[in-house]
Amino acid sequence: MQYEGVRQQIVAAMTDTTHPHHLYELIQPLQPYDMSEVIREMEHDQVLTLIMKLPIAFAAESLEHLEPDLQYKIIHHLEQKMAPALLKQLSSDTIVDMLLAIHPLQAEKVLTLLPADYRKKIDDLMTYPEETAGSLTTVDYISARAHWTGEQALRHIRKVGHEAEIVSYIYVTNIRGELVGIVSLKEIILASPDTSLSNLTTTDIISVPAEMGQEEVAQIFSNYDLYALPVVNQQKRLIGIITIDDVVDVIQEEATEDVQKLGGSQPLTEPYFRTSVWKLYSSRIIWLLVLFVGGAYTANVLSSYQGEIQKVIILSVFIPLLIGTGGNTGSQIVSTLVRAVGIGEVAFGDMLRVVKKELMTGLLLGLSLGIIAYFRAMTMKVSIQVGCVVSLSAMLIVLWATFVAAILPLILHRLRIDPAVVSGPLITTLVDGTGLVIYFSIAKMILHI
Amino acid sequence: MQYEGVRQQIVAAMTDTTHPHHLYELIQPLQPYDMSEVIREMEHDQVLTLIMKLPIAFAAESLEHLEPDLQYKIIHHLEQKMAPALLKQLSSDTIVDMLLAIHPLQAEKVLTLLPADYRKKIDDLMTYPEETAGSLTTVDYISARAHWTGEQALRHIRKVGHEAEIVSYIYVTNIRGELVGIVSLKEIILASPDTSLSNLTTTDIISVPAEMGQEEVAQIFSNYDLYALPVVNQQKRLIGIITIDDVVDVIQEEATEDVQKLGGSQPLTEPYFRTSVWKLYSSRIIWLLVLFVGGAYTANVLSSYQGEIQKVIILSVFIPLLIGTGGNTGSQIVSTLVRAVGIGEVAFGDMLRVVKKELMTGLLLGLSLGIIAYFRAMTMKVSIQVGCVVSLSAMLIVLWATFVAAILPLILHRLRIDPAVVSGPLITTLVDGTGLVIYFSIAKMILHI
Repeated sequence: MQYEGVRQQIVAAMTDTTHPHHLYELIQPLQPYDMSEVIREMEHDQVLTLIMKLPIAFAAESLEHLEPDLQYKIIHHLEQKMAPALLKQLSSDTIVDMLLAIHPLQAEKVLTLLPADYRKKIDDLMTYPEETAGSLTTVDYISARAHWTGEQALRHIRKVGHEAEIVSYIYVTNIRGELVGIVSLKEIILASPDTSLSNLTTTDIISVPAEMGQEEVAQIFSNYDLYALPVVNQQKRLIGIITIDDVVDVIQEEATEDVQKLGGSQPLTEPYFRTSVWKLYSSRIIWLLVLFVGGAYTANVLSSYQGEIQKVIILSVFIPLLIGTGGNTGSQIVSTLVRAVGIGEVAFGDMLRVVKKELMTGLLLGLSLGIIAYFRAMTMKVSIQVGCVVSLSAMLIVLWATFVAAILPLILHRLRIDPAVVSGPLITTLVDGTGLVIYFSIAKMILHI
Repeated sequence: MQYEGVRQQIVAAMTDTTHPHHLYELIQPLQPYDMSEVIREMEHDQVLTLIMKLPIAFAAESLEHLEPDLQYKIIHHLEQKMAPALLKQLSSDTIVDMLLAIHPLQAEKVLTLLPADYRKKIDDLMTYPEETAGSLTTVDYISARAHWTGEQALRHIRKVGHEAEIVSYIYVTNIRGELVGIVSLKEIILASPDTSLSNLTTTDIISVPAEMGQEEVAQIFSNYDLYALPVVNQQKRLIGIITIDDVVDVIQEEATEDVQKLGGSQPLTEPYFRTSVWKLYSSRIIWLLVLFVGGAYTANVLSSYQGEIQKVIILSVFIPLLIGTGGNTGSQIVSTLVRAVGIGEVAFGDMLRVVKKELMTGLLLGLSLGIIAYFRAMTMKVSIQVGCVVSLSAMLIVLWATFVAAILPLILHRLRIDPAVVSGPLITTLVDGTGLVIYFSIAKMILHI
């Protein structure tokens, strides 16, 4: 909401012809991101007028922060001359994202605004599926040849650097376009000007295939503390680089997805307030139905114990507490393990270690809660036997929930299913019914009913 | 586990005096991160021998990836001459983290290994609390004066650039050490050598106070697509910069913390396998107890409805299903909202919009589940009246859970309590008892019991 005031001032300044400089004074302290927030709240006509008054590089950078459909709407309605100039300033991964988000016929029209050679590159990048390394790749990088001197490389950077997204690293390729190594701008500056790049190039470098999933890409960035990562195609040719600012977005998105899945809903594809009620409903009803159907068997379980409940009606009052405790334990473990699997700390091969660790922890938790449960039951003035049933059930339900929650995420991961589908609600539903079986079996044994 | 083979080969090569070059061939293709994984599994004596055989810059970079206590153990046991040289190569934020993790007396000893002026800077950085901008700050940046020419700046970079963590941006300060602006290395290279820095400097830049929380810092990086961010103290003096690789770690950690909190446990401070059973137990038992005590009132609620259960025993079989559905709905909403608050999409001021959106979604969900619940109840051969009780209860419980889950995270955020404490299990426990009240009130009304 802090941008609302700025927006109003900018709109006022645009129509105020007596003080043409006022607009520039307002814009000058803004970062491109701030401008994008302002643009988002403006009317379309005003946006077009504003964009044409902005320095083109600043306009392009502001556009980078907008959603693909809004980017297209702006570019589509700009004057014939301005649109290609603005497009040229956008990074190639932004253009690809935009073209993939709009109708193919619209994309075709936008592509005609680009120079032929650039168009070819964009066309290639568009072939990579969403959420892969290829979809994050930008072709706005600087490449050089190994035999160049530092001086030559710097001249080259001066020539093409304006359009590069990152100039800190220069990618050295051979005549076939294969990646040979990386030389950092720092090294070039620090070395004497006539040093050959081949002496400065690091050849043992990390690169990723364009088909790699974006989560794995993010993990490589995070492990190796990278700022940029070269991407190669199946012929080992360098097709571009991924820069860390895009990876930060991926990490944020993946974490948000994990949180939403663990909470038991389909992840939203858009920010919260841009998601309609209908989309919110759709993202939730699927799992609620699955869980409802899955949980419906608890009614059958309880129904088969109606005789026991009738005999010792007090047993019914501990049902929510006991199955709730099982669900809580399971939810704790599942969230910890799903995240640990997600960031690569735990894999299927660690199953035995995980189960051992969790069962030992579960034993301690079960004992603690079992004791508490006994005293809680006694405050309801139940018999010692019923107290024992409640206590023993709490203990065993915790252990059972522990076991299920410890193995399920790893098994799913092994089956290449996202372990985050074992949400807290799912594990709760799973152990609800079995918890009831444990409870009433113990009751039948101890109370002889 | 993939590092196990490399470790064995390296250990073998270290003792093999007949082929001294074999060790270097093994090490050469490794990245510092890979080396840190190898080191972690080696015995301490072997680590020391290996470190002394590594190129010092590579040894330092490998050390950067290790845990503070292991870093200290290595530095402490290195030869007198090697330790200061290695320390000098470490980035200042790494040194600060290490010093804060070890005993103050040990830290004192390590500090004596540093040059006096650097020691002063480290001392200053150590005063900032954990999880603030100050704790992420490195002093290994390059600063310059506005009146320098590009050529002068490049000479300066050549002189001090070896120790800088990032050379892509040069920070321009005035005589009082206040930050005036930023000039990118790209701009310097692209401009002619005699251009004054003042002509290249961007003065409208983002900087953050050292006291800012790290989550907010991460959000700024993510919004503005930054690679580095200057940090100033209360006197507006530049104390250092934060680089994005450290922010990536922060984002990962904060997301992991959120997931664990939402799952209903205290977040772990260490990776999963380095967390002992006892620590795992401690992180979980607190919330399990809170939830157990919180959930214990469901027993009182049910106990007060024992008469009704006795009369219509079939009512008891739908208890887990109905309260489970309420919990699932609440869990979905809470996870979505907590994350939206965490990444700054939603704030307390949006309460009305959120509640409206959620209640409308909740109405749709409640209607859907109410209808399903009716048919589910009928398959148990209950009377139409009982079917209506179950159906109506499902509907109202979903709506009630929606309302509670929509307002709680925002209220907590307003009270400056981390909204992630409203975990899935907590919301489930909260709506369990109230769900029972709704269920039995409706039952009493419709069934006249």
